[in-house]
Amino acid sequence: MKILIINGPNLNLLGKREPEVYGSMSFEEYFRKLQSKFKKITLEYYQSNVEGELIDKIHAVGFDYDGIVINAGAYTHTSVALRDAIASIETSAIEVHISNTHQREEFRHHSYISPVCKGIILGFGLDSYRLAIESFLK
Amino acid sequence: MKILIINGPNLNLLGKREPEVYGSMSFEEYFRKLQSKFKKITLEYYQSNVEGELIDKIHAVGFDYDGIVINAGAYTHTSVALRDAIASIETSAIEVHISNTHQREEFRHHSYISPVCKGIILGFGLDSYRLAIESFLK
Amino acid sequence: MKILIINGPNLNLLGKREPEVYGSMSFEEYFRKLQSKFKKITLEYYQSNVEGELIDKIHAVGFDYDGIVINAGAYTHTSVALRDAIASIETSAIEVHISNTHQREEFRHHSYISPVCKGIILGFGLDSYRLAIESFLK
Amino acid sequence: MKILIINGPNLNLLGKREPEVYGSMSFEEYFRKLQSKFKKITLEYYQSNVEGELIDKIHAVGFDYDGIVINAGAYTHTSVALRDAIASIETSAIEVHISNTHQREEFRHHSYISPVCKGIILGFGLDSYRLAIESFLK
Amino acid sequence: MKILIINGPNLNLLGKREPEVYGSMSFEEYFRKLQSKFKKITLEYYQSNVEGELIDKIHAVGFDYDGIVINAGAYTHTSVALRDAIASIETSAIEVHISNTHQREEFRHHSYISPVCKGIILGFGLDSYRLAIESFLK
Amino acid sequence: MKILIINGPNLNLLGKREPEVYGSMSFEEYFRKLQSKFKKITLEYYQSNVEGELIDKIHAVGFDYDGIVINAGAYTHTSVALRDAIASIETSAIEVHISNTHQREEFRHHSYISPVCKGIILGFGLDSYRLAIESFLK
Amino acid sequence: MKILIINGPNLNLLGKREPEVYGSMSFEEYFRKLQSKFKKITLEYYQSNVEGELIDKIHAVGFDYDGIVINAGAYTHTSVALRDAIASIETSAIEVHISNTHQREEFRHHSYISPVCKGIILGFGLDSYRLAIESFLK
Amino acid sequence: MKILIINGPNLNLLGKREPEVYGSMSFEEYFRKLQSKFKKITLEYYQSNVEGELIDKIHAVGFDYDGIVINAGAYTHTSVALRDAIASIETSAIEVHISNTHQREEFRHHSYISPVCKGIILGFGLDSYRLAIESFLK
Amino acid sequence: MKILIINGPNLNLLGKREPEVYGSMSFEEYFRKLQSKFKKITLEYYQSNVEGELIDKIHAVGFDYDGIVINAGAYTHTSVALRDAIASIETSAIEVHISNTHQREEFRHHSYISPVCKGIILGFGLDSYRLAIESFLK
Amino acid sequence: MKILIINGPNLNLLGKREPEVYGSMSFEEYFRKLQSKFKKITLEYYQSNVEGELIDKIHAVGFDYDGIVINAGAYTHTSVALRDAIASIETSAIEVHISNTHQREEFRHHSYISPVCKGIILGFGLDSYRLAIESFLK
Amino acid sequence: MKILIINGPNLNLLGKREPEVYGSMSFEEYFRKLQSKFKKITLEYYQSNVEGELIDKIHAVGFDYDGIVINAGAYTHTSVALRDAIASIETSAIEVHISNTHQREEFRHHSYISPVCKGIILGFGLDSYRLAIESFLK
Amino acid sequence: MKILIINGPNLNLLGKREPEVYGSMSFEEYFRKLQSKFKKITLEYYQSNVEGELIDKIHAVGFDYDGIVINAGAYTHTSVALRDAIASIETSAIEVHISNTHQREEFRHHSYISPVCKGIILGFGLDSYRLAIESFLK
Repeated sequence: MKILIINGPNLNLLGKREPEVYGSMSFEEYFRKLQSKFKKITLEYYQSNVEGELIDKIHAVGFDYDGIVINAGAYTHTSVALRDAIASIETSAIEVHISNTHQREEFRHHSYISPVCKGIILGFGLDSYRLAIESFLK
Repeated sequence: MKILIINGPNLNLLGKREPEVYGSMSFEEYFRKLQSKFKKITLEYYQSNVEGELIDKIHAVGFDYDGIVINAGAYTHTSVALRDAIASIETSAIEVHISNTHQREEFRHHSYISPVCKGIILGFGLDSYRLAIESFLK
Repeated sequence: MKILIINGPNLNLLGKREPEVYGSMSFEEYFRKLQSKFKKITLEYYQSNVEGELIDKIHAVGFDYDGIVINAGAYTHTSVALRDAIASIETSAIEVHISNTHQREEFRHHSYISPVCKGIILGFGLDSYRLAIESFLK
Repeated sequence: MKILIINGPNLNLLGKREPEVYGSMSFEEYFRKLQSKFKKITLEYYQSNVEGELIDKIHAVGFDYDGIVINAGAYTHTSVALRDAIASIETSAIEVHISNTHQREEFRHHSYISPVCKGIILGFGLDSYRLAIESFLK
Repeated sequence: MKILIINGPNLNLLGKREPEVYGSMSFEEYFRKLQSKFKKITLEYYQSNVEGELIDKIHAVGFDYDGIVINAGAYTHTSVALRDAIASIETSAIEVHISNTHQREEFRHHSYISPVCKGIILGFGLDSYRLAIESFLK
Repeated sequence: MKILIINGPNLNLLGKREPEVYGSMSFEEYFRKLQSKFKKITLEYYQSNVEGELIDKIHAVGFDYDGIVINAGAYTHTSVALRDAIASIETSAIEVHISNTHQREEFRHHSYISPVCKGIILGFGLDSYRLAIESFLK
Repeated sequence: MKILIINGPNLNLLGKREPEVYGSMSFEEYFRKLQSKFKKITLEYYQSNVEGELIDKIHAVGFDYDGIVINAGAYTHTSVALRDAIASIETSAIEVHISNTHQREEFRHHSYISPVCKGIILGFGLDSYRLAIESFLK
Repeated sequence: MKILIINGPNLNLLGKREPEVYGSMSFEEYFRKLQSKFKKITLEYYQSNVEGELIDKIHAVGFDYDGIVINAGAYTHTSVALRDAIASIETSAIEVHISNTHQREEFRHHSYISPVCKGIILGFGLDSYRLAIESFLK
Repeated sequence: MKILIINGPNLNLLGKREPEVYGSMSFEEYFRKLQSKFKKITLEYYQSNVEGELIDKIHAVGFDYDGIVINAGAYTHTSVALRDAIASIETSAIEVHISNTHQREEFRHHSYISPVCKGIILGFGLDSYRLAIESFLK
Repeated sequence: MKILIINGPNLNLLGKREPEVYGSMSFEEYFRKLQSKFKKITLEYYQSNVEGELIDKIHAVGFDYDGIVINAGAYTHTSVALRDAIASIETSAIEVHISNTHQREEFRHHSYISPVCKGIILGFGLDSYRLAIESFLK
Repeated sequence: MKILIINGPNLNLLGKREPEVYGSMSFEEYFRKLQSKFKKITLEYYQSNVEGELIDKIHAVGFDYDGIVINAGAYTHTSVALRDAIASIETSAIEVHISNTHQREEFRHHSYISPVCKGIILGFGLDSYRLAIESFLK
Repeated sequence: MKILIINGPNLNLLGKREPEVYGSMSFEEYFRKLQSKFKKITLEYYQSNVEGELIDKIHAVGFDYDGIVINAGAYTHTSVALRDAIASIETSAIEVHISNTHQREEFRHHSYISPVCKGIILGFGLDSYRLAIESFLK
């Protein structure tokens, strides 16, 4: 089973931005923990701040992999193009968010990609990613 | 660890309503499966179609239990009172939905309780409940 | 043929509230007149001010009776839960209103239950109920 | 008792348009059935696709006839002029629709003429007309 | 100097509709009074309930006459076609209304033709027409 | 003089919820203080989390008592049914709120019951109830 | 017959501001022309840029004069206080505007004072004032 | 204890405007009654129709007095400047209204000053002022 | 192959209205040019300012012709009836506009008929009609 | 004559995505057909999923080429930057869409680039591109 | 070079209001610092809480001075009259704000005067005024 | 002191696009002038049309430089991702615009980045950049 985790804009700053709040662990470290936990799954990780590169990646894996776990960051709220990319592929995508976006600004309450994702998990901190992977392991 | 699953209006019809779509398993049967899977957790289940009775139940367990998993059904979209009940207690609540509400009517895209829940899981069918319980087991 | 008439909140005050306007006949009296008029139909009547109890009743009859005539009163405009209850059952429901709700406040112009009812009759006074029953007698 | 049935735009296509859906009976045939059923009433029928001609007709009968049953078709949603015509006359008008307009596009949920009609009946197919005539026969 | 007064839908009922409110004078009688008062002006009068016929008339006089005084009735609020007709011609048009439309329903507060008329006069009863004609007589 | 104080959903938690903020006095204790202060008035108190039970209570006292002081809690913002209940009775109702609802979330700025209450008092903490009772003692 | 013309903010700049557009005639000069034309009427003129002073003036004349002609300038669109002042007095007020406000920015399309004025005249340039005075001379 | 009552625009007309509705008592007379009732409090009264003068007065007393009772009249609905004035001072302000503003036009349902006032009392007629002063006398 | 070109309101003025802008060619002349260009197609042309007559024409050809090219003019933005007419027939319709409606007023950006037309072509001047006919000639 | 066809996000999947719906022809193949059909025109083709790269390309050709045919895909609905790019260049752009976007989700009904394009063609399948090129060949 | 700084409502409280936040320097002191810094410019300062007095001042200097720097305070968000005053004069105006208004309440995000000012500077504390004056010194 | 100037999409066309309006000076030339003027500051310049590359650059300098001056062009109005990037770094950012965006289309009146910038300067032409740099030099 092959699953790709995709992180969108600004998520490369995890561990660097406000470490007293978000902790000093980078996503790369967290990702290695996930790999240890789910040894039977081939986990991959991709991050880009460029909307179009995220789309390219979705196209690249979307007809072969078993699952995509995507935190589209701010593009969640503005990108119809990402929505179309997810709708165009065959692989199921799970939308995740670290924070509970419904506790934040009004414009973060709407997600363009929710309707084309299989499921949505948000608000559990980094643990949202773990739960998303669990969802493929019924 | 004690966790209560609360189901809101019309969820008592699971297994009876359109069995060819939703399957013929009632929630009670599914609940017993969950109990088997999570034997170390004391799982309880409550369902009511009356908004105020759901509030009464949340008050009753909200200062003692370790977690609440709530599928508020249609009250998700209309009940400020449920929101206040969850905000008033000390126990963390996880919001779940069987379907991906963002694929349904516009008025189902807004949840009054999302901002006061710790996390939100939706779209995974009955498996949303399992993932919610997993979230308490880091 | 079995038909249930369901009245929602505040409709128990008919005959008591502003009798110079609404007349001094209670709904119970009117209901007996309907029974006399439609002798071949088994007519039943239920009223509650509690949203969840209305849902319970809809569930109770919704897989056996031939028809439901429902005046959901104020819940018409606010209850997604009632809508879901009607959508979940097999029995057809007819929505009725005594007054022409479109002549009243803006918030009474929208009905959550209209899209899931078979037909809608409003503005004929109590006669709206009679016409609703006629609709089952083509 | 004289009652006029008025049909607005496109209703002249009944029986021709999608006969597998709407049936192959034209409104003229249905109208003759109504005449047979309500022999004591002088029933008349008028159809036009021209908004102003509908207004002319309403003016012509609106001070003499006992009732108007009007399906204004698409003008229901756009015509303030029809509303004013109905409000200007003395004869009571009943608004009818064949389909349940609340199950269709958003712009069909609003009716300019509802507030000036005595009653509204919709969703019963052609039977909506029969019920409207019943409303004059308490 | 040639001026045409155009009245839109339902204004043919003046004198007939609610005479205790609007008086029992028809517009034709009022028009003859205007002719007596403004003897040096060739005054003409046209009324139709058909939107397209009003447009035809505007086209017919709009390149020759010195002025148009138009009370478009309900089409004021719904007709982009009338607006375009007035914008297309060379003759100046004055918009008039008998009542103060801003004291009536919300949907009567917007006029599609106001931006393409030279001036607007409303709320003076039938006297609005007299003032409109005065505007051509500086 | 008989006055009923009605408290809606979640107000039963006063004294238990965040005592460092709201104090450790339950509403029952505060109510006894009010009784001491207004000895000439028969004060009664009712609380329920069930919308329909609040309506039942309003019906029960609304034709006999001299006044109702109602803090409808979250139902203030969502319940047309409560509004109709208050509008249907003869007893005057005073709407009160402990907090200044206009300093809270947008959806708490609108009250369905304000237009049918005689007067509104909010923002004075528990003292809002005292002032409401003062209003009956001119 | 005593009529007061009231001009609101910025109208004191007429004749000074963009004279190539608005002409080089100040409102005082125009006012003297009006006085010459309507010799039988006692015409007075008042201008202020201060909202409250306009209200003071309306109060001062509003129970004695025969008419008020008011161009409230920008306060037209923002002042509920002016609306209340006009609604509180006995003298009829006519709203005038020099330009056709419906050809300008969206926020100039709404007038708070229109619903409390007897009539409205706009778009005729300074001639709007003349027509307003004509309206008192049926 | 020093308390200032501030009345905004048009409230100087009390007793003059529609005396059959509002009574023939001016606010000055009512104020003397209040002074008699609350002899231990130094009560002052100020009224102006000028928004800026109301602000000046709030500044003048806002760092010394014990309370302000303000009926901002129409400025309630339009004045951010008054809101800022109240927010800038140290003295607590109570917002009062004579009528129940929620029974009036839509634009009177919003108050810019509510969020910066300690409490709000409305709908009790002139008695709203008395209750506001009571609020300082726990 | 038979194709009908339908022009709606005010398009009869082409060639007469502002010839320095739109040119002095009437649509009739342009139509003859189209006929010369597409000799193998039977091209017909119809224009009316009356909404209902446009509907009549659509009904008349809509079950026999191979295509309709329709410029509904201002009715594009207001006519649900035209939309229903096009949706009711079997012949495909192409929507055309001479100007780029998205460069004009906001209310011209919405078309009621776009969703029921096969394709849409706009902004090419009269050449929009030519391209529409090309679309039938793959 | 040099014309560039620009395709935006996800259009690289044509022929791969849902071939039973969109056909199994890639855009490259279709493009070669277009080149065969329009031999006198130098046709070029560019596709990118990156918004900024589309802008770069528009800048690169926008002062030399004779025309641009652009299907901006999802960026149509979200990209002000693309709009500005097209508005900044000298070459005329034609907006095309394969599907009739007005039959799809609400958010696809608005195009940021329509107002800055010379013409718009949509709904004809791949044939939309052919018609766009025809528009340069009057 | 003569430049006038205009401060609107409540800005007279600077140095008095919350000195621990805004500092204890009054605007008058800051103004003297500005005068020291820009010795070659004749700087003047005016403050009023009265909207109409601000307009009067703008009129007084608006045809002679070289620049106006205006912080309209709360009138920024509500005053069309100030906008018109600035639009009517010849002197350029620069809009300044001490705080970043976009970090505050929604209603502070809109400025009526921005479109008629030459430039806008906000968020730099009192330094916004200094930068505004720099703008006249290219 | 190190300051980076960042220009977003289409700003690379300065000097090329409509030189008669914007002048023939490229931003590079203007930048060299700025460097001459502020010799004590290390000024750098970056431009990209790719949203994600702008984010990358902000990340790269945002923990070391003393200031960022950003003209995000069209991304100002659509990019939540840029907002998050600026909010995530430690360096203060100043938002600048060449034109007064409030004089342009409605959609340019909202800026996603304003709330996370320290200050905002707009409408001064290229001089907006100079003033932004001045803001770092108190």
